[in-house]
Amino acid sequence: MNDQTMAAAFYRGDKTFAVERVPVTTPENGEITIRVAYCGICGTDMHVFHGNMDARVGHNRIVGHEMSGVVETVGTDVTGFVAGQKVTVRPLDPDLNCPASKAGYPHVSHNMKFLGLDTDGAMQELWTVPAHTVHALPDDMPLDRAALVEPVAVACHDVRLSELQQDEDVVVVGGGPIGILVAMVARDAGGNVTVSEVNENRLAVARKLGFDTVNPAKEDLVAVINEKTGNKGADVVFEVSGSQPGVDATTAVAATRGRIVMVAIHAQKPTVDMFQYFWRELKLIGARVYEPEDYEQAITLVASGVIDAETIITDVSPLSEIQTAFESLDSNPTAMKSLIKVGDFA
Amino acid sequence: MNDQTMAAAFYRGDKTFAVERVPVTTPENGEITIRVAYCGICGTDMHVFHGNMDARVGHNRIVGHEMSGVVETVGTDVTGFVAGQKVTVRPLDPDLNCPASKAGYPHVSHNMKFLGLDTDGAMQELWTVPAHTVHALPDDMPLDRAALVEPVAVACHDVRLSELQQDEDVVVVGGGPIGILVAMVARDAGGNVTVSEVNENRLAVARKLGFDTVNPAKEDLVAVINEKTGNKGADVVFEVSGSQPGVDATTAVAATRGRIVMVAIHAQKPTVDMFQYFWRELKLIGARVYEPEDYEQAITLVASGVIDAETIITDVSPLSEIQTAFESLDSNPTAMKSLIKVGDFA
Ligand SMILES: NC(=O)c1ccc[n+]([C@@H]2O[C@H](COP(=O)([O-])OP(=O)(O)OC[C@H]3O[C@@H](n4cnc5c(N)ncnc54)[C@H](O)[C@@H]3O)[C@@H](O)[C@H]2O)c1
Ligand SMILES: NC(=O)c1ccc[n+]([C@@H]2O[C@H](COP(=O)([O-])OP(=O)(O)OC[C@H]3O[C@@H](n4cnc5c(N)ncnc54)[C@H](O)[C@@H]3O)[C@@H](O)[C@H]2O)c1
Ligand SMILES: [Zn+2]
Ligand SMILES: [Zn+2]
Repeated sequence: MNDQTMAAAFYRGDKTFAVERVPVTTPENGEITIRVAYCGICGTDMHVFHGNMDARVGHNRIVGHEMSGVVETVGTDVTGFVAGQKVTVRPLDPDLNCPASKAGYPHVSHNMKFLGLDTDGAMQELWTVPAHTVHALPDDMPLDRAALVEPVAVACHDVRLSELQQDEDVVVVGGGPIGILVAMVARDAGGNVTVSEVNENRLAVARKLGFDTVNPAKEDLVAVINEKTGNKGADVVFEVSGSQPGVDATTAVAATRGRIVMVAIHAQKPTVDMFQYFWRELKLIGARVYEPEDYEQAITLVASGVIDAETIITDVSPLSEIQTAFESLDSNPTAMKSLIKVGDFA
Repeated sequence: MNDQTMAAAFYRGDKTFAVERVPVTTPENGEITIRVAYCGICGTDMHVFHGNMDARVGHNRIVGHEMSGVVETVGTDVTGFVAGQKVTVRPLDPDLNCPASKAGYPHVSHNMKFLGLDTDGAMQELWTVPAHTVHALPDDMPLDRAALVEPVAVACHDVRLSELQQDEDVVVVGGGPIGILVAMVARDAGGNVTVSEVNENRLAVARKLGFDTVNPAKEDLVAVINEKTGNKGADVVFEVSGSQPGVDATTAVAATRGRIVMVAIHAQKPTVDMFQYFWRELKLIGARVYEPEDYEQAITLVASGVIDAETIITDVSPLSEIQTAFESLDSNPTAMKSLIKVGDFA
């Protein structure tokens, strides 16, 4: 197509990324090519790094799906976007023929392609994506913050599905990057939020952000929440730890008729106190990624500063140092969100 | 108070009932005394019989909570009921000061008294209860059928909480007395109902009632439901088996965004495929007993014949034979609902 090249980071298996030069891409019909500014490293990317997803991604994959950038080229039959415009990508390419899509839930469609896992992602200077995945950003939005839109949209989806009401008591179990964002979005929605977390560094972050915190390894979480809520319990509980003790905590702290949102991915089947679901008429709500409206809300919350980006973004490294960035994130107990600066522009 | 006596059946522990004569009771302020016609034997009563609930009920307890009768005497400060009127009882005496009651859910209030377990029940000729528990029945309602109102109200509650819509696909896991009533109520609400059951006698009952049936020990339940629903899965699944394989079936047959209603009481903590809750955005809804509106709906459904009482009621025994009735229900694989005829009137 042309003989220009760009940098791209390939996952090569065995905890190794290789940054190589590849031909630049241009959009086909219905596509947009984006000049990538920043791309966050997600827990899923760490799973790829650890080799846990080799069967799905192979050893020739460009990862990355938490990104920001500007439109480079707009393909034919694409309207509403112009070159130079700031954008982010909702990295879901659903199968529109499956029953879930037909029922109105393409974001959980069977056989959906997740961009950056099932297709190449944003750890490359120019990323070409279907136009339906692109969301416009405000002109004055700093592009480093904008790379948080994707995980914030996860949190917006979780809080929306919880049907959280003003002044309800909320417990977030697990204060990792996703849990902390859920806590921020839930507080913005009017919740009285307590973060439960076993990692003291992350507890310190949560406290710095103004949340009540509990370390359930040191304190009795149920007693603390009962005290705080007049023995009512939490109206909404988010399971964002991915652990058996976290699952146990959800049913223990929930109020009668409380809603428990399952955000975490449990590869093992946990045991669940089903008696409590019956006895207290609890509700469990599974939540996966986001819908377009969650992306729009996330853009608003990041733009308005409701999301404290300074505290969340703990590292920024250039694409050339992606290997070191993954390695140090892997061993760093104080990191929250590491960004890769993919493109070298303002 | 007076020297008249009546028959009452006491649970004496060790799989033994004793029918004895005791002084008749009269209502206090705010109470109603009911002449009991029929009282059904519930699964919970069988648990009492087996000694599993001795700590809760003791050895001097009159059980029974699925009853019908006529008003004998109305206490002071009770309006809306007259002697001779047909009635049934919603056997819940909630603690109105607990957080659940204050939040509008007294039926799941903490420290609630369940009449017939935590207080004496309806296996006695005259039963005195709080007036707020009494529901009027239509004059022309046969009193044997009316003894089904309580378990039917359980089913009404379960189906209401499922938010079942017209033409949705429903799987009922477990075709015991409660599961079959859930199936009938769900069909009346417009559901396309399949009953999954491992007991061939109960499968035969379900088929006689016109339901599609599956024996998951012999057929692949998921394959059958996928075939029936064009690979969509069940929109609503009721877990009414109380078994680990039943819990496994719920997540396996549910459609993306399907609702799973937990009706059964799981004394053991089952393992749960939490990944599916996340991946397909499933919802789990705990459901316990009933609210007043469920009772009113149950009365309507029993009166109108939507509930096929002839098929459900498989035995009727006099109170004097309560011991034999429990023993034979315990060993009878074809029984559905056994009634005790407590009072000897039309
Ligand atoms: N629903 C979705 O679409 C979606 C999207 C992104 C991530 N996720 C999932 O969300 C979960 C959280 O993601 P993350 O990136 O924040 O992961 P993370 O592993 O960084 O965070 C989990 C946190 O839970 C804490 N924790 C562990 N056991 C605990 C316990 N018993 N009580 C309290 N805290 C405990 C850990 O210390 C850790 O800080 C993961 O399971 C991830 O796969 C889901
Ligand atoms: N939510 C409530 O308020 C409420 C009220 C009454 C009863 N219950 C509970 O509902 C449940 C059902 O009550 P019931 O009286 O019908 O009990 P039951 O034991 O008579 O019925 C359970 C049925 O499930 C069947 N079963 C067992 N394993 C199965 C499997 N793998 N797949 C399909 N079917 C299977 C059994 O053969 C049996 O027929 C019990 O757990 C009971 O405690 C709850
Ligand atoms: Zn991610
Ligand atoms: Zn019962």
